[in-house]
Amino acid sequence: MNQVPVSDTPLLHARDPRGVHTLTLHTPQAYNVLSEAMLVALQAALDDVARDDNARAVVLAAAGKAFCAGHNLKEMRARPELAYYQRLFAQCSRVMLSIQKLAVPVIARVQGLATAAGCQLVAQCDLAVAADTASFGVNGIDVGLFCATPSVPLVRNMPAKQAMEMLLTGDFIGAAEAKTRGLVNRVVPLGSLDAEVERLVAAILSKPREAVAMGKALFYQQRETGIEAAYQLAGQTMACNMVHGVAQEGVAAFIEKRAPAWRPVAPGQEGQA
Amino acid sequence: MNQVPVSDTPLLHARDPRGVHTLTLHTPQAYNVLSEAMLVALQAALDDVARDDNARAVVLAAAGKAFCAGHNLKEMRARPELAYYQRLFAQCSRVMLSIQKLAVPVIARVQGLATAAGCQLVAQCDLAVAADTASFGVNGIDVGLFCATPSVPLVRNMPAKQAMEMLLTGDFIGAAEAKTRGLVNRVVPLGSLDAEVERLVAAILSKPREAVAMGKALFYQQRETGIEAAYQLAGQTMACNMVHGVAQEGVAAFIEKRAPAWRPVAPGQEGQA
Amino acid sequence: MNQVPVSDTPLLHARDPRGVHTLTLHTPQAYNVLSEAMLVALQAALDDVARDDNARAVVLAAAGKAFCAGHNLKEMRARPELAYYQRLFAQCSRVMLSIQKLAVPVIARVQGLATAAGCQLVAQCDLAVAADTASFGVNGIDVGLFCATPSVPLVRNMPAKQAMEMLLTGDFIGAAEAKTRGLVNRVVPLGSLDAEVERLVAAILSKPREAVAMGKALFYQQRETGIEAAYQLAGQTMACNMVHGVAQEGVAAFIEKRAPAWRPVAPGQEGQA
Repeated sequence: MNQVPVSDTPLLHARDPRGVHTLTLHTPQAYNVLSEAMLVALQAALDDVARDDNARAVVLAAAGKAFCAGHNLKEMRARPELAYYQRLFAQCSRVMLSIQKLAVPVIARVQGLATAAGCQLVAQCDLAVAADTASFGVNGIDVGLFCATPSVPLVRNMPAKQAMEMLLTGDFIGAAEAKTRGLVNRVVPLGSLDAEVERLVAAILSKPREAVAMGKALFYQQRETGIEAAYQLAGQTMACNMVHGVAQEGVAAFIEKRAPAWRPVAPGQEGQA
Repeated sequence: MNQVPVSDTPLLHARDPRGVHTLTLHTPQAYNVLSEAMLVALQAALDDVARDDNARAVVLAAAGKAFCAGHNLKEMRARPELAYYQRLFAQCSRVMLSIQKLAVPVIARVQGLATAAGCQLVAQCDLAVAADTASFGVNGIDVGLFCATPSVPLVRNMPAKQAMEMLLTGDFIGAAEAKTRGLVNRVVPLGSLDAEVERLVAAILSKPREAVAMGKALFYQQRETGIEAAYQLAGQTMACNMVHGVAQEGVAAFIEKRAPAWRPVAPGQEGQA
Repeated sequence: MNQVPVSDTPLLHARDPRGVHTLTLHTPQAYNVLSEAMLVALQAALDDVARDDNARAVVLAAAGKAFCAGHNLKEMRARPELAYYQRLFAQCSRVMLSIQKLAVPVIARVQGLATAAGCQLVAQCDLAVAADTASFGVNGIDVGLFCATPSVPLVRNMPAKQAMEMLLTGDFIGAAEAKTRGLVNRVVPLGSLDAEVERLVAAILSKPREAVAMGKALFYQQRETGIEAAYQLAGQTMACNMVHGVAQEGVAAFIEKRAPAWRPVAPGQEGQA
C-alpha cells in the first residue's frame, strides 16, 4: 500500500490513499516509552486524524521488539513535583480519551511487550490484534507506582479480579490469555500480524464511515448510563443513521440484491457515500 | 404438555397449565423479522404475561430455520422519515425493556440465525439456550445501519472489545463462541434444545414465584448503581423476601428436613405458596 | 510462619510478623455459617486490620470441609421480624463493604463449598484462590430466599447471564468453571492451596503498602464512574503516588539497576519504605 509519511519522529505517522492512518511508536531503542515528546506527537497525530474528513481507521503500531514500556521513568525522576506529575498524567489521559473520541476505529497492532501505560494503550483502543509474541502487564507496582490510569480501561476490558491480580502482582500474561480475558480480539503468529490487522481494516473500510462514526460514539456513551437512557440514546442514533443516505442506500441495495454504491471503496474514492 | 393457544399470527402465544408462556416468532418465510406487526404482537403478549398473576416463565422461541433476522427492512425503506424511525425504535426498545421488567424469567430458545435486533432479543432475555446450529451477528453495519440499540444489551452481556468487533465488522459467531462470551447460557444439539430449555423451566418452577420476582427486579436495579446503594437496595429486598411466607416456609422446611409446601408445583396449583 | 492468635471463636484471627492477617471462619460443625456472632467477629477483625498500620494483607480462610454455607437459617427463623432482617442484612453488607474499604488486599482461600453469603464473601474479596475441591452456589432461592445481597458482588465478577442462571436455579459450579467466569483467580489441588495463597501474599508483600493502598481504593472508586471522571481520579492518584517516597525510591532503584530499599520486606521491618 502506498504510504505517505506525515511525520516521523518519535512517532511515524503515515496515511494511505484509503484513509487508513498508521501511527508507529518509533523509539525502539527506548522500548517506545510514552515520553513527553511521544505524548505530544501522539496527541498531534490523533488531532490530525480527527481533522481528516476522509480518515477511515487508525492502526496503532510500534517498531522493534517491544510495543510500549509505559512512561519514561528517567524523565519522571528528573522532576519530582506534584504539579508536573499532575500535568503529565492529564496529558496522557487526554491522549487515551482522544482514541475513544475519534470518529474512526483505532486498532492496536501489538507485536511485543505492552507494559503499564503501554498496556493501557492496548486496552483503550477499540480493537486489538496481538502477535503470539506479545505480552501484557500493568507492573508499575514493581517500582512502587500503582498503575492507576491503566486500571481505567483495564477493568472496562477484563473481569475485575483478573485486572486486580495484574495490578497488585505486576505479573504478565501472554497473548492467548489476553484474548481469553477480552483484552485483545485476535492472536496470530507474528508473521501474520499485518495480514490480520489488514483483515479488520478491510472490514471497516467496506462499511460507510458515517455509520461507523455514529455507532462508535453511541457505543461508549450508552455504556455509561442506565439501560433506559441507553435505549433512548441508541434509538435516537439509529433513527438518525436510518435517515442518512448511507443507510437508505444500503437498505435499498439489500432489497434490490445488489452491492451498495458505497462499497467497495476504491483508493481515491474514500468518503463517497 | 397441554398448550392453550392465546393468539397465533405473526406470533404464536401458548400458555401451559404450569404458567409457562411460550411466544413463538412465527413468520418463518420472512425469517421472523421484527415487523411492526410482530413488535405489536410481542408487546401485547408480554403485556398479557405481565397481567397473568400465575405466570411462571416465558420461553421466547421461533419457527423455521432462522431465529430472527432483525428489523423489516422493506417496511423501513417505505417510510424514509425521521419521526417514523424514532417511533419504530422506541417501540422496539419498549419491547426489549418489557422483557427485563417482566416479573418472570424470560428464556431465549435459539435454534438458528439471530441477526441484529434478533441477536438483541437473545441478549436482552434473562437466560438463553442455543442449539449448536445457532449463530449470532449484529450486522446492520453491512447495510450502513450501525446496530445501536442491539449494542445496549450486547455490551452488558459480553466483553467490550468482542462486542465492538461484532458491531464494526458484522461478523457472526457460532453458538459455542456465544457461550464463551456470555451471550448464551447453554449450547446443545438441536435435538436436545427443547429438553434443555425445559430443564431451566423446571428449575424455575421449583422455586416460589414471589422470590424470583423480587430477585429479578433487584438484580437489574442494583447493577446500575454504585456498590453502596446496591447493597442498600439488596438488603431491603432480602429483608422483604425473608418476611414473606415463601421464605418463612422454605427456611422452616429446610430446618425440618422436609420439602417446602410450595414445591413441587403440580399443574393447576401454581401460585400457591 | 509464627502466628500470633488475636482471637479464636467463632473466628480465628492470627497475624504473622509480616503483617499478614489470617481470618479463619471456625465453626466447621456449622459449615462456618455467618451467624450474628460470626458477623460481629468478622467486623471486629476487619476493624482491627484497618487499625493496624503495618498490616499488609488479609487471608480469609475457613476450617473444615465447607468454606461457608451462608446465613444461619435457624437464627433467622427464630425472629421473623422485618426490622430484625433489615438489621441483619445491613450488618452483613457492612462486613462485605469493609473488605472492599480495607487498605490491604483481601484474598479468599476457598477449600470447599461456598454457598449464598459464603459465595458472596468470595466474590467480594479482591482476589480468590480455590482448591479444586471448592464449589460455588447462590442457592437461597432453594428455600424461597433470592440471594439479593450476594448478587451485588456476583454480577460485578461474572457475566450477567451466568450470574442470573446461578441465582435463579441455585445450581452450583466447580472451581474450574468459577475461574473461567472470573469469580476466582487461581485453582490448585487442595494440597497446594496454602502454597498458592502464599505466592500471592509474597507478591503483595514485595510491593510497598502505600502504593497498594492508594491503588486499591482508586480501583473500586473509578470503576463506578464514567470514563472521564475515572481518568481524573486516576491521574490525581498516580501523581500523589509518584511524589510519595516509595515511588521515588522505586523509580530511582529501577534506573540505577538495584533493588529498591523497601524490598524485600524482612520480618520485623514491615512498613518501612
